[in-house]
Amino acid sequence: MSTRASFIDRLARRWEQAGSLLCIGLDPDPARLPASLCDSPDAIYAFCREIVDATADLVCAFKPQFAYFASARAEAQLERLLAHLRERHPDVPVILDVKRGDIGATAEHYAREAFERYGADAVTLSPYMGRDSIEPFLAYADRGAFLLCRTSNPGGADLQMLDVGGEPLYQRVARLACGDWNRGGQLGLVVGATYPAELAAVRALVGDMPLLVPGIGAQGGDIAASVSAGQTSGGTGIVINSSRAILYAGDALDFAERAHAVARATRDEINRHRRGTTDAH
Amino acid sequence: MSTRASFIDRLARRWEQAGSLLCIGLDPDPARLPASLCDSPDAIYAFCREIVDATADLVCAFKPQFAYFASARAEAQLERLLAHLRERHPDVPVILDVKRGDIGATAEHYAREAFERYGADAVTLSPYMGRDSIEPFLAYADRGAFLLCRTSNPGGADLQMLDVGGEPLYQRVARLACGDWNRGGQLGLVVGATYPAELAAVRALVGDMPLLVPGIGAQGGDIAASVSAGQTSGGTGIVINSSRAILYAGDALDFAERAHAVARATRDEINRHRRGTTDAH
Repeated sequence: MSTRASFIDRLARRWEQAGSLLCIGLDPDPARLPASLCDSPDAIYAFCREIVDATADLVCAFKPQFAYFASARAEAQLERLLAHLRERHPDVPVILDVKRGDIGATAEHYAREAFERYGADAVTLSPYMGRDSIEPFLAYADRGAFLLCRTSNPGGADLQMLDVGGEPLYQRVARLACGDWNRGGQLGLVVGATYPAELAAVRALVGDMPLLVPGIGAQGGDIAASVSAGQTSGGTGIVINSSRAILYAGDALDFAERAHAVARATRDEINRHRRGTTDAH
Repeated sequence: MSTRASFIDRLARRWEQAGSLLCIGLDPDPARLPASLCDSPDAIYAFCREIVDATADLVCAFKPQFAYFASARAEAQLERLLAHLRERHPDVPVILDVKRGDIGATAEHYAREAFERYGADAVTLSPYMGRDSIEPFLAYADRGAFLLCRTSNPGGADLQMLDVGGEPLYQRVARLACGDWNRGGQLGLVVGATYPAELAAVRALVGDMPLLVPGIGAQGGDIAASVSAGQTSGGTGIVINSSRAILYAGDALDFAERAHAVARATRDEINRHRRGTTDAH
């Protein structure tokens, strides 16, 4: 679709430039927005814009969670937010967290939605429907996709830990994602911070593939364990997501400042556990 | 949330009332809409409204496919369509095909979107993230959910056919869905028409649980084989979906009439293979 650098190259460049592996998840819950914004008709956009402007220098990516916009009829605000990010923070990749998964003809429409309508740099996808449900997204050569592998929630184990021929299902997904399914080198995996041993097992299988790691902060995942388990030999390779702990650090007029402070502390805590951080930044 | 009949009871009543197991999938592709509608700003809504009004007497359900609305920025038209269906065809359940799957806090927002914003009677969900990704939908006691089990696409086999302790993964999903995960009796399964042997295997595992069966028509699934394999002993239990073959039966001014004719022929063809149809209608 274009000749610009691949998503994964842009992400790698951002890790280096920003000296950060932190991703901020944009989960704007209408019930938790600061009182100062509540009367605004575009409160969700205004909240997210203030958060991203206050924290962009601290992150390797932003990850808007589609569900929060969809339940609030705020698709137009999501479009504005991504346009704002492209204009003001063009070096920060945006991972649209949609967890799509459908047959080919339908997946083409979801790919168009994510990459053309919203202009996302990457998406999250479910692997359950197999390779042809992923391919329409990979037709956009400069975009990326993170496949759900080992998710951070308790129920993740229900299917993902089932033994399939001597390995758990999530490891089979990891091997498919770094083998045949990934001819264009556009894939990453989602592996929760709540299971560091499994994060280490995935890293051992997938070389330098990027891993999106949700579950620190409100979900209880441990930063030190996640970074140790997930980083590559070069001290990168992971996109560590925190949402609520940063977004709702403060609920008064200074919410963006408070978000900045928590984001900076989180970035620094991540960096303390990285290999070669003193060289990287 | 309310005291009205459960989704599955309403579906069973509709099978009986309409004498039909046919579901029409609403996949409004802007590139294939009739020329007469193309200049309308709400062409997607107008097209779907004409289709549902022309075919409602022939179906047990309608299934709007979210991706087609999302790629066209047509969420408001989807809202109008569901409002129209509730008002004009209140006895026809609407299955919103969204294939969601996310952690609990996020799944609550998706449930709110599907059931409160759009007012759907049921949704489709991915099982990959396990039980707690399903539960927020089941909190709506009068609504239902169809879990992806054995999907109609070629890549469906990539994970779904993996052996997990002596059975393929899709059969494990079927057993989970009719066991512990289904305490409120709100679940059904999605099993593609393209694999009738696997449809029969699922039916043997799940008793009378409703099965949503996509893949006839444009995808090549065989009606006789699907009905024989999927129906219950009472000749119901299946929601057989056809989308493109009906929606795009004609592209001139008479498109709704042509859709009606193909839908009637499809309903009749399904009924020819049902047990006890002469009693049912």
